[in-house]
Amino acid sequence: MKQSTLFGRTLRDAPSDATTPGTQLMLRAAIARPLAAGLYTWLPLGFRVAEKVEQIVREEQNRIGAQEMEMPVLTPAEPWKETGRWESLEPITFRTADHNGREFMVSYTHEEFVHLHAKQEIQSYRQLPAIVYHFQSKGRDEARPRAGLLRVREFVMKDAYTFDADQAGLEKSYEAEHGAYARTFARMGLDAISVESDTGAMGGDVAHEFQVLTEVGEDRIAICTNCDYRANLEKATRKIAPQRSPDAIPAPTPVATPGTTSIEALEKALGLPASAFLKTLLLRTKDGVVAVVLPGDREANEPKQDTHLRDVVPGRDFGGERVDVHDVREGDACPRCGGRLEIKRGVEVGNIFAYGTYYSTKLDATFLAEDGTRRPFVGGSYGIGIGRSVQTIIETHHDERGIIWPPSVAPFHVHLIALPSSDPDVRAKSEALVAALEREHVEVLYDDRDESAGVKFADADLIGIPLRVTVSKRTLKEDKVELKPRARADAELLPQGDAAGRIAAIVRGWPDLPEMGNR
Amino acid sequence: MKQSTLFGRTLRDAPSDATTPGTQLMLRAAIARPLAAGLYTWLPLGFRVAEKVEQIVREEQNRIGAQEMEMPVLTPAEPWKETGRWESLEPITFRTADHNGREFMVSYTHEEFVHLHAKQEIQSYRQLPAIVYHFQSKGRDEARPRAGLLRVREFVMKDAYTFDADQAGLEKSYEAEHGAYARTFARMGLDAISVESDTGAMGGDVAHEFQVLTEVGEDRIAICTNCDYRANLEKATRKIAPQRSPDAIPAPTPVATPGTTSIEALEKALGLPASAFLKTLLLRTKDGVVAVVLPGDREANEPKQDTHLRDVVPGRDFGGERVDVHDVREGDACPRCGGRLEIKRGVEVGNIFAYGTYYSTKLDATFLAEDGTRRPFVGGSYGIGIGRSVQTIIETHHDERGIIWPPSVAPFHVHLIALPSSDPDVRAKSEALVAALEREHVEVLYDDRDESAGVKFADADLIGIPLRVTVSKRTLKEDKVELKPRARADAELLPQGDAAGRIAAIVRGWPDLPEMGNR
Repeated sequence: MKQSTLFGRTLRDAPSDATTPGTQLMLRAAIARPLAAGLYTWLPLGFRVAEKVEQIVREEQNRIGAQEMEMPVLTPAEPWKETGRWESLEPITFRTADHNGREFMVSYTHEEFVHLHAKQEIQSYRQLPAIVYHFQSKGRDEARPRAGLLRVREFVMKDAYTFDADQAGLEKSYEAEHGAYARTFARMGLDAISVESDTGAMGGDVAHEFQVLTEVGEDRIAICTNCDYRANLEKATRKIAPQRSPDAIPAPTPVATPGTTSIEALEKALGLPASAFLKTLLLRTKDGVVAVVLPGDREANEPKQDTHLRDVVPGRDFGGERVDVHDVREGDACPRCGGRLEIKRGVEVGNIFAYGTYYSTKLDATFLAEDGTRRPFVGGSYGIGIGRSVQTIIETHHDERGIIWPPSVAPFHVHLIALPSSDPDVRAKSEALVAALEREHVEVLYDDRDESAGVKFADADLIGIPLRVTVSKRTLKEDKVELKPRARADAELLPQGDAAGRIAAIVRGWPDLPEMGNR
Repeated sequence: MKQSTLFGRTLRDAPSDATTPGTQLMLRAAIARPLAAGLYTWLPLGFRVAEKVEQIVREEQNRIGAQEMEMPVLTPAEPWKETGRWESLEPITFRTADHNGREFMVSYTHEEFVHLHAKQEIQSYRQLPAIVYHFQSKGRDEARPRAGLLRVREFVMKDAYTFDADQAGLEKSYEAEHGAYARTFARMGLDAISVESDTGAMGGDVAHEFQVLTEVGEDRIAICTNCDYRANLEKATRKIAPQRSPDAIPAPTPVATPGTTSIEALEKALGLPASAFLKTLLLRTKDGVVAVVLPGDREANEPKQDTHLRDVVPGRDFGGERVDVHDVREGDACPRCGGRLEIKRGVEVGNIFAYGTYYSTKLDATFLAEDGTRRPFVGGSYGIGIGRSVQTIIETHHDERGIIWPPSVAPFHVHLIALPSSDPDVRAKSEALVAALEREHVEVLYDDRDESAGVKFADADLIGIPLRVTVSKRTLKEDKVELKPRARADAELLPQGDAAGRIAAIVRGWPDLPEMGNR
């Protein structure tokens, strides 16, 4: 592709509201542009990256036998109402209605609808297990879109759904998706770790997130420095030191604390650490007001609250129930091995949920089991955000001059620079090399612009294509072209006649390339 | 892919509301399923067809230098308001709002937004011409979704946009897209003709539709039997026979017509044909009430009305203006050559609009011209409906037993049938042949189900994959497999050892195949 007519111009400076390094580079390199807060357009360079990320996801889904399909963006309200999510998702979704007043949700995920399809398409246990997936636009009414493509109001997600006959089948499917995710992120250059996570709006008990550790992440992850325990703080627990026997503690005595209304004030007044006190918080939940008693130095973790207290019944449990609702901190003891926990920031690029029969029972989605009875499907869902993956790649693959794309997802393999492009010989030799490379299926962005060497090299560093090839009057004098990998400082000169073959061999040697067809 | 776990089951009978042959076959063959009126899910078989149709469109767009990108589904209200389309599109679009009350439209098309991008990305005439396109979901609040995928409420459209410096450039770009469309439809097996059309909601003067003639179409097309004049009836005109000189006609005389309130009644009362009368219709338009005088045998064509009468001003024009607002009928004279016009039904699978500066002036989208002035972009837009194309292919490629896919868009190349699949030898030989074919990049749907020959052959005819290959105890006795093209009645026996190579050679010989990569 000729850079002179490329739709998307590089920017010398990032807009002032671009808060992360990746957002700045994403905008400067013309990967995507906002149309409104949280609504982005992929420009051609970014679209090529997104398509490669998508193709890697597709190949790894197909490898485990998943079948691609496509469900619509607009989804009718009724099935959402049957599962109770029409109401619970209201704060973060977009709704619309037709001119007859029939309501629709801009798709949030598709659990409800894929179950309705499964009910119709899968009649017998003989058709199980089944895995289906699609890439589809999702809407999220984020109050505060931020950090470019990391938190947006519309994004393409790959969501996969597994259907099994029983729990053992689900566990096998879940494991297959877990493995596919590990390969998927590794192939796109992301060092994603799998962490235990809260099931949130999805229902069910078991869930994992794939997190890429980076300072720009919004999530906080507890990681054991000794064993392989890793959990989102929304889910993490700690080992609590054994308490002294009540017999060893004197009977309670009132202590005068006039005017001390905070734990901080108590610490000062009595000369004891915050952890020596108990504090009581009143939290409003959807089942009423709940009183939570915590060590003085801990905060309540609201996702845990939602998850673990929903069955608290005044009268039955009001005397108090020991539940895990407090936060976990750097230095706490690992709940598994007692080792030291570290807290790191991460970006969630994927998540997987084993919800079992949570949806199938609500939607009466059953199949004919081997024993002749009708049973509900046992299922899971599995998401990957495409745009978020692309920006996370940028956040973790750049230097001060620009992006350094992993070859598997780079918009092009080679950035070929003609210097100067006004010179007829340089131009002719450049175009011959572009043609020779393209014959070898090497993807080339050809900088044919009438710009200085400084501008062209700066753009090449910013855009970050793996191989920069320069054809200049100077190199042609020696019958050579210059090859410089973006990730390295040193360049080498290749004989002109050999260049296309040598470069094509390098590209063919790259691991993890997706097979894109004719793009 | 194994048919035993294919997500999507064939139906013996179509639902009673499936009104066209293509809708019936689309549903019976598990191509797509409705989630609600006018909202469809592509099942895996149909998804593969849609992807091939999309890839053919992509390859032909790329061939003329178009660059792929992707704009969002949710589009902010403000730019729509600047062009006046927020209001004019209200009856047929879906709207939503965020929790702060900010309004969005579920994308109808993207002229407004691609102009805003062009304004930012294209600074100088040196970057022109530019063609960009995307595939994106569109919403249409159709009051009466009908005929399966032909008239729906959500569909993926390829929309392309050209930007040029002047009218001559636009004409060149328009011609390039016109050519790409002709190749695109031919490659997917559609005999689409280009017809003059009304510009409707798009603005501008010149527009063409690509119409596939079939009785299930909603559009009516006037086609000259003598020259190449072809126009949608919304746009078509006719040659009107020269009138007799007024001098040859006596002065008007009143004729008593008590109680005759219709043209039909007048015909009877006076014994003259409807065409001998003039009738006056009062039509409510957005600029007020307009009186239209027509020959008694013609109807007013409302799209023409909207288009040609918008500048009628009472007082200035009230005395009467000769405009072309009446309909055209079978047997009328061609406006170009005077030949006989035929009227045929058609499905519009694509449309192209040369709107010039209609959007760029409203949105102040300008570039720096060669003479140093700022000028508005001169543009056009170009749409193809993917789902409608798929169903139109079915409507025009089937027999009484099922679909007959053109090889370029078939979900698989080969339908391999094991008979019976319970026989270990049949099964082993079938699976070896599937593997050998897949190594040659032949796409195989493998019917490994425990079903009768009758059921399997009926499904093969219904699904319509180009080559049916049967591996049975009978054929294996002769060390052969049976090959039968879906489009032909006769089968042939191939030596088993040769079969993969022979079949792969047939597939490689098919023209027009899209290059799909690893799907």
